[in-house]
Amino acid sequence: MGERIDRERSRARIERDIETLAGPEYTLSDSAICRYAYTGVYRNTLAYFTRELEEIGFGVWQDPVGTLIASNVAPAAPAFGVGSHCDSNRNGGKYDGTLGVCTALEVCRLAAQERPELPLRLISFLEEEGSGFGQMLLGSRIMLQRVSEEELRETIRDEHGVSFWDAAEAAGYEPARWRESIRALDNLTGWVEVHIEQGRVLQDTDTRLGIVEAIVGYIHGDLHFSGRADHAGATPMGFRLDAALPAAETIVELERLANELGGGVVGTVGELDVAPSLINVIPGGTRISLDLRSTSTLHAELRDGIVAFAHARGAARGVGVEYVQRQELLVQPMDDGLVAALAASAQESGETYRQMPSGAAHDTQCVASRVPSAMVFVPCLDGLSHTPLEQADPADAALAAEVVYCAITARAG
Amino acid sequence: MGERIDRERSRARIERDIETLAGPEYTLSDSAICRYAYTGVYRNTLAYFTRELEEIGFGVWQDPVGTLIASNVAPAAPAFGVGSHCDSNRNGGKYDGTLGVCTALEVCRLAAQERPELPLRLISFLEEEGSGFGQMLLGSRIMLQRVSEEELRETIRDEHGVSFWDAAEAAGYEPARWRESIRALDNLTGWVEVHIEQGRVLQDTDTRLGIVEAIVGYIHGDLHFSGRADHAGATPMGFRLDAALPAAETIVELERLANELGGGVVGTVGELDVAPSLINVIPGGTRISLDLRSTSTLHAELRDGIVAFAHARGAARGVGVEYVQRQELLVQPMDDGLVAALAASAQESGETYRQMPSGAAHDTQCVASRVPSAMVFVPCLDGLSHTPLEQADPADAALAAEVVYCAITARAG
Repeated sequence: MGERIDRERSRARIERDIETLAGPEYTLSDSAICRYAYTGVYRNTLAYFTRELEEIGFGVWQDPVGTLIASNVAPAAPAFGVGSHCDSNRNGGKYDGTLGVCTALEVCRLAAQERPELPLRLISFLEEEGSGFGQMLLGSRIMLQRVSEEELRETIRDEHGVSFWDAAEAAGYEPARWRESIRALDNLTGWVEVHIEQGRVLQDTDTRLGIVEAIVGYIHGDLHFSGRADHAGATPMGFRLDAALPAAETIVELERLANELGGGVVGTVGELDVAPSLINVIPGGTRISLDLRSTSTLHAELRDGIVAFAHARGAARGVGVEYVQRQELLVQPMDDGLVAALAASAQESGETYRQMPSGAAHDTQCVASRVPSAMVFVPCLDGLSHTPLEQADPADAALAAEVVYCAITARAG
Repeated sequence: MGERIDRERSRARIERDIETLAGPEYTLSDSAICRYAYTGVYRNTLAYFTRELEEIGFGVWQDPVGTLIASNVAPAAPAFGVGSHCDSNRNGGKYDGTLGVCTALEVCRLAAQERPELPLRLISFLEEEGSGFGQMLLGSRIMLQRVSEEELRETIRDEHGVSFWDAAEAAGYEPARWRESIRALDNLTGWVEVHIEQGRVLQDTDTRLGIVEAIVGYIHGDLHFSGRADHAGATPMGFRLDAALPAAETIVELERLANELGGGVVGTVGELDVAPSLINVIPGGTRISLDLRSTSTLHAELRDGIVAFAHARGAARGVGVEYVQRQELLVQPMDDGLVAALAASAQESGETYRQMPSGAAHDTQCVASRVPSAMVFVPCLDGLSHTPLEQADPADAALAAEVVYCAITARAG
């Protein structure tokens, strides 16, 4: 099996795009990528993509809130969608999101060179990271009508208290027409987003591409343990109601139970507070956060199991236990046919790949509710993301562009 | 067995003393007791004790830094010592320390009434709580020459940056003569301090008095666990180096090991930090504090055992572990003969008592290095101390005064 495209040419173009967009015109910070909606550097970034896409004959426009859309056919004509987001978190790296838009641009370039009649639509979503207005996936949620006008006008504000609505108007957009954003999905025949993995599975297993089968559902919640804050010296072991003990037992059990359930379910205690937090006082209260994910219903099973365990350990120790759920996001399966097409294309590339879940959230989970969708992951160094230390190899992005382009052409027949 | 003294009269006097000293002239706060060295309210407190002691014929003086001393014989004549401290922590209650000085005053009153020839010396220590200068047991450490002149002149400062030395001089004392403080112990034939328990053992076992056999030694330290902060969604269970897991296992093991060792050893994890402390990030670092105490060498055994356990769990998980000791304080046994005398006196009272360790630090651990010493605990509500919620029963303090007075007279023969 040989290369179906000139991978080195793709690598060089993608690398140039990514390095250009890491320059001072495109970030608010000189030590990181910091780029979010309606800033000058964000505008410059959209202008860069606009120039590059127009150069290969694509029409380029923005929706009423500033989502960038480009196509080589009419706006509502059937086309296959590719893209990602080009905002960053505030102390971000060069690759999260941007690598996906650059790879989508490369898919468009390949089509322009190899098969100009292949109808494509590139979308670069607004505010995936939430750096501007504190809301993740804001652009794709606006597109899917998963926000209310009240939120856009009042609730969602930037760090200076300016509402999304006012900020969009000040930037020259027409937020009053926000419901029209969904037209970007009209007649979209499929959607593929390329993204850095943000995990270490590809790196640690020496694999060049991941084909995402599903974006995990997750449950976020907190377990609160209420004991009694006694003097650490004056209170014998048998006289204690130490809130940290059943919490610690629960942390240990969470790992055991996740491994027992298997099926890729993961459970994490990322936040842990004790009160009063003094070396010589027995913890009277302890809180642990729960982040539970799977591509099935296993994370809900894990939640039920761990909450029951915490209650049992609390009861055995005379410590009160309360579970408070913060958020539950449903599993978003990817389109089986598209996953199979991408896997076949990856197979043909002769390079290593694996099918895997996405453990992080992506704009694609919004798109997938209306359009047959999938994602392709490329490895990133040590799984790092949302930091200037992010690293990914443009050669992997070039391979992803080839695999996506060939899968789309194969489906187009 | 009947009452050897009029307990109701003692109770009323102690209650009046404690309630008076809870009045607005004696505290800087209107919602708590807040009283520390060289403040007007502290001066008023010493003046109160001075008046009450002079009224029963005691000579009263202060040492060069402001320790209050009173005796019914000449300053250096052999006498038995009683007392505690009358400073409070900044958000304190009416009983911690003050109850002990009031009970010592009551012992002096009983002697004045029943046996004026019994030589007694009352000492009220300065700055036990460290509220003024951030140093616990400062007065008794000055007395025992456990500080350096450099520290008193330079290092030890109040919240405004004023050195202990300058503050003492400004209050009219002579810190240059601080080494003479130790004369308060000259020819002291014994020492008993009455204090609230600051634990819940007496309350929960329905016991009126505790005879302290030893003040526990303690080890304070921290275990640091270094793993890797990966994305909670994108990192399968088998790819993690979660620093919180061996920490949680160590917390659970600490309780098990303390219970296995027995002998009254206690182990507490009071502080617990994870980093970066985000719900969706696996902890890359975790710190747990260790507070380990016993009246033997068991707490050092507990330290060795738990540190070895943490290292083993860290090694098994690929997580780095480091133990950093903060402080080690040696066990201070009480005088066997004095403990026996107090126990015999408590037995004669016909009331409930138990021999027990002191889990907290007290001025007596300094005194005990030179003078045969012991302590008597009275119950306090729910073990609470260092809070305006502190509660103790003056009737228990009256019983303590009787038991101490009778033990001293029995030893005097």
